[in-house]
Amino acid sequence: MFSYSDSDLYCENVALADLATRVGTPAFVYSAQSILENYRAYDEAFQDIPHNVCYAVKANSSLAVLGLLARAGAGFDIVSGGELYRVLEAGADPAKVVFSGVGKTPDEVEYALASGIHRFNCESEAELLLVDAMAARRGVRPGFAVRVNPDVDANTHPYISTGLSEHKFGIAISEAPGVYERARKLVNLCADGVSCHIGSQILELSPILEAVDKVLALAASLGNAGFPIRHLDLGGGLGVAYHSGQKAPEIRAFIASLHDRLRASRLCVTVEPGRSIVGPAGILLTRVLYRKKNGPKEFVVVDAAMNDLIRPSLYRAHHEIIPVRQRPLPSITADVVGPVCESGDFLARDRTVANVMPGDYLAVCTAGAYGFVLSSNYNSRPRAPEVLVEGGAYRVIRRRETFEDLVRGETL
Amino acid sequence: MFSYSDSDLYCENVALADLATRVGTPAFVYSAQSILENYRAYDEAFQDIPHNVCYAVKANSSLAVLGLLARAGAGFDIVSGGELYRVLEAGADPAKVVFSGVGKTPDEVEYALASGIHRFNCESEAELLLVDAMAARRGVRPGFAVRVNPDVDANTHPYISTGLSEHKFGIAISEAPGVYERARKLVNLCADGVSCHIGSQILELSPILEAVDKVLALAASLGNAGFPIRHLDLGGGLGVAYHSGQKAPEIRAFIASLHDRLRASRLCVTVEPGRSIVGPAGILLTRVLYRKKNGPKEFVVVDAAMNDLIRPSLYRAHHEIIPVRQRPLPSITADVVGPVCESGDFLARDRTVANVMPGDYLAVCTAGAYGFVLSSNYNSRPRAPEVLVEGGAYRVIRRRETFEDLVRGETL
Repeated sequence: MFSYSDSDLYCENVALADLATRVGTPAFVYSAQSILENYRAYDEAFQDIPHNVCYAVKANSSLAVLGLLARAGAGFDIVSGGELYRVLEAGADPAKVVFSGVGKTPDEVEYALASGIHRFNCESEAELLLVDAMAARRGVRPGFAVRVNPDVDANTHPYISTGLSEHKFGIAISEAPGVYERARKLVNLCADGVSCHIGSQILELSPILEAVDKVLALAASLGNAGFPIRHLDLGGGLGVAYHSGQKAPEIRAFIASLHDRLRASRLCVTVEPGRSIVGPAGILLTRVLYRKKNGPKEFVVVDAAMNDLIRPSLYRAHHEIIPVRQRPLPSITADVVGPVCESGDFLARDRTVANVMPGDYLAVCTAGAYGFVLSSNYNSRPRAPEVLVEGGAYRVIRRRETFEDLVRGETL
Repeated sequence: MFSYSDSDLYCENVALADLATRVGTPAFVYSAQSILENYRAYDEAFQDIPHNVCYAVKANSSLAVLGLLARAGAGFDIVSGGELYRVLEAGADPAKVVFSGVGKTPDEVEYALASGIHRFNCESEAELLLVDAMAARRGVRPGFAVRVNPDVDANTHPYISTGLSEHKFGIAISEAPGVYERARKLVNLCADGVSCHIGSQILELSPILEAVDKVLALAASLGNAGFPIRHLDLGGGLGVAYHSGQKAPEIRAFIASLHDRLRASRLCVTVEPGRSIVGPAGILLTRVLYRKKNGPKEFVVVDAAMNDLIRPSLYRAHHEIIPVRQRPLPSITADVVGPVCESGDFLARDRTVANVMPGDYLAVCTAGAYGFVLSSNYNSRPRAPEVLVEGGAYRVIRRRETFEDLVRGETL
């Protein structure tokens, strides 16, 4: 939902130059229409297969974004007590919330049980024991799935690849039957599901299909062993196109490729998409502060920095950077860098970008996922505001931080 | 100031197990005595050379830490309006504040001029024009130094090496005379200094000495050309020992190695140490949540994560991890990981660590610099508290964030 009209970049029907002037920069801007379309692509692609699209809150946890998705009927995949708080504040139905993650604390498990969440994706036997004990104390019997590690290589960045046995996540699929057997004596838990998640930003479907086949085989054998397996959680991980010209799998085609397998299983299928729902639906707006040259190298210094968007620095991620107003000038090759005092503070390196001048606005694309949520106050920079566009209107859904916010909770 | 007594780890005279129980984990803990000793090592080592030790606020910008240093007489190196706000709140003397950084905005320059800061380290000609114009409007005439890029290799991590011509910082030293010449017509600026900074976490003195020689030669030639050069800013960058057994240069020996050069120059010398003052003076306290094995790999899951300390993930940094209570058990080899849902969330990999059990506390060492300041709310995790120990007493200098803090400023 970001496109040019007469050389001006729009989000839906809002001109981004106007928005930048009014809200200031840096600022994250999200398209409500994109978010909802991506969610609906998942929801509708399942057709008659019973399913639960649980948006992965970690990708973008803005209350307004969660609220949009909750009203559209989404469930939520959470990984912390803070995320549970957020989805409840946003009006989510707790009966559609699944709780994942390797480090659930007793307080978090208690909070989840008290809130009546749908189910737990458990990542170790020690965690099963903890949830069982706390469920006993509350007199409830939650459903759980063991997150199994299908040992397939997702061919993605090592930091967001999670399905290999060398990773901290899940339990080796070969050990899962033993874990379920031992869990029979945990009478406060209901072993009614199996889950997996092999990574993030996955651009080839074959590893996902391979994982699904392995997990379906496990579900079938557990069913034969008498476990009431009704839920299959396939996790998330579908990638998006960060490079112009890059092709990411289409959401509908991805789900369609699973139809036959899933329908035959007669299981209720949960997916946990995050990036593929919000990533392309957001940009980071920034203003050019300076142009400078160091020897042969050209730099465009902008007012957004690694504290706003750490993906280039942390994952060597590529984000397209496009002008908010196109000009008929030949492009330049430059590093696009922020004001933070380290060389790791860059948004793009040796990039062909528009021939911008100080005061011009740029849009850092595909910044709706793992953007604001990873932002910090590094160099004592207030965090950027978040803005939601709906048609021709926009509203600030998180205000820009102030200097007073920086020191909140501190004492001299 | 972290040492064992009877198997218990202390910060000064405070037992960290007690502190962890009372304050909770994760938590950053700083030793006031260490911070002050490191500051005084710089201050005293200059002996009769006129000097200004400007603590680099970016390393740890806690108000209480800044207040300690301000009361001890420190100046401050700031890189943003937010850092200026912090040092003023902490009681700093603006006349001892230098403003560095490649992306100073007009608002920040205005704020700095209004506050009467000591001087500007300017990083581009465009910035000189901006500061001159704004100084004219206020009727003031601030001093400045051009930050020159001596093109020496600091042999440190690429993200924190800054003195090569391919970096965004400064102006090539060969171009500096021309920049000063052209700045003669900027009548609202006083060209009374030269500055450089070649990087961070530098463990060999030779690149620093090489840079100092180059910058001193520049200062002399600018003096001969009639510029009233009185200030030499050598930046910061002295490294600390992150590995046990690693040797970092001693602060006093480092300054002593510069004595002859600096005394001969008759300039007032500014240094901007950050990491070497606060790095070893802080730890990150964390609690073990789970032990788990995936195939041959062992994991210790703790309650601190990459959102609390991103250095291992961002810079592949090594931090020693030691038990808060030593036990007579053989150590294990494990990954120490947090609850955040990505494989990039680790504090140590394949590390020999104490044979800890759930509930045990660990200290992640040398976390006083670039620790809390880079922390985020990723995975909707409230940021950790900061605690300052002074002798046998401690106080929470920044409280733990709450769920309410997470959503502050947001609207549904």
